[in-house]
Amino acid sequence: MHTKNISTAVIKRLPRYYRYLGELLAHDVVRISSKELSEKMGVTASQIRQDLNNFGGFGQQGYGYQVEYLYTEIGKILGLDKKNKLIILGAGNLGMALTNSTGLQKRGFEIIGIFDVNPQVVGKKVRDIEIYHVDTLESFLKEHEVDMAALTVPKAVAPALAADVVKWGVKAIWNFAPTDLHLPSDVVQENVHLTESLMRLSYKKKAAEEEKK
Amino acid sequence: MHTKNISTAVIKRLPRYYRYLGELLAHDVVRISSKELSEKMGVTASQIRQDLNNFGGFGQQGYGYQVEYLYTEIGKILGLDKKNKLIILGAGNLGMALTNSTGLQKRGFEIIGIFDVNPQVVGKKVRDIEIYHVDTLESFLKEHEVDMAALTVPKAVAPALAADVVKWGVKAIWNFAPTDLHLPSDVVQENVHLTESLMRLSYKKKAAEEEKK
Repeated sequence: MHTKNISTAVIKRLPRYYRYLGELLAHDVVRISSKELSEKMGVTASQIRQDLNNFGGFGQQGYGYQVEYLYTEIGKILGLDKKNKLIILGAGNLGMALTNSTGLQKRGFEIIGIFDVNPQVVGKKVRDIEIYHVDTLESFLKEHEVDMAALTVPKAVAPALAADVVKWGVKAIWNFAPTDLHLPSDVVQENVHLTESLMRLSYKKKAAEEEKK
Repeated sequence: MHTKNISTAVIKRLPRYYRYLGELLAHDVVRISSKELSEKMGVTASQIRQDLNNFGGFGQQGYGYQVEYLYTEIGKILGLDKKNKLIILGAGNLGMALTNSTGLQKRGFEIIGIFDVNPQVVGKKVRDIEIYHVDTLESFLKEHEVDMAALTVPKAVAPALAADVVKWGVKAIWNFAPTDLHLPSDVVQENVHLTESLMRLSYKKKAAEEEKK
């Protein structure tokens, strides 16, 4: 099926379905009704049916969804049916957190290089992955196929570094720098703005307090 | 004004407005038109007017928005007009990344304690903030007012630890564990699911590749 036909809102929810289906699969669950899945996930059964019916004719009345089939199909939509090769730009705490994330490894994301400018870390290895100097990035990208680059460097250097890796062929940027990158239209990006996330929590807390008044 | 009257979609965008306005303020910009702001932020001027008109009668025709006023008002809505006290649960790479984040400090989030079980880090200090043993959490929360807890511990222990801090009075959880927490209705949460974010990037990349075909 063509991913184009699925709405952005559904796409946003797909990784969460994928996580729940993966957990069911790990517990050897073969099939699940929309009602059971609805109780687990805290969304309505009708929402689940609407979302998952995008993926064809499963979810038969009285039978439920085939967990493995659905998991595999959603995995394909998400591009997880192949290994995705990732580089980490910035060997600071955040870069190390990503490097050590078991979640990423479980989903088939393979980190093949880490890049930094700090002579104290360049040359070291983390989980057998080498930390290279940023100066070697261009030649590394010529020699290796890289699907995505995680950008965990300071804001001041992030836009220029992103422009460099894009120039050298990377088509997907996972941006952690608290700035908006202006990239060519054929390059995709996903932003994780941690401070903005915490501000949303702060807003929710304040709103909840006001509601009680 | 009452935050209740603002739509969730606008709220989601507020931290980004706040970031841009903060940058303008840092560059001594006194006022800005919706057109200029629109070009900077890459959203339509009409969207900006719609969003910002929620905050009352600024943005006069031919005058533009008063940057400092708007920045201050949005800060109030986001609960940033006071110091927010934060604890970090988990002194791993992610916990350290948050502890060292200058963005958090700049927005008035003050980290007052870090908690872990690892004897190798308990007792140490990071930026003058002590790392305590998790066993001391209950007494710490009795003695200190804590606005929010960042949960950066492994998935297997996250739900129980979240339940504990909530029991001991914390009303806002910033959850980084790749699991959904089931918290009482008066407790707010904000989730940062990193692997899901990367899956969305993977989806976008695959969709962009298919479009080219």
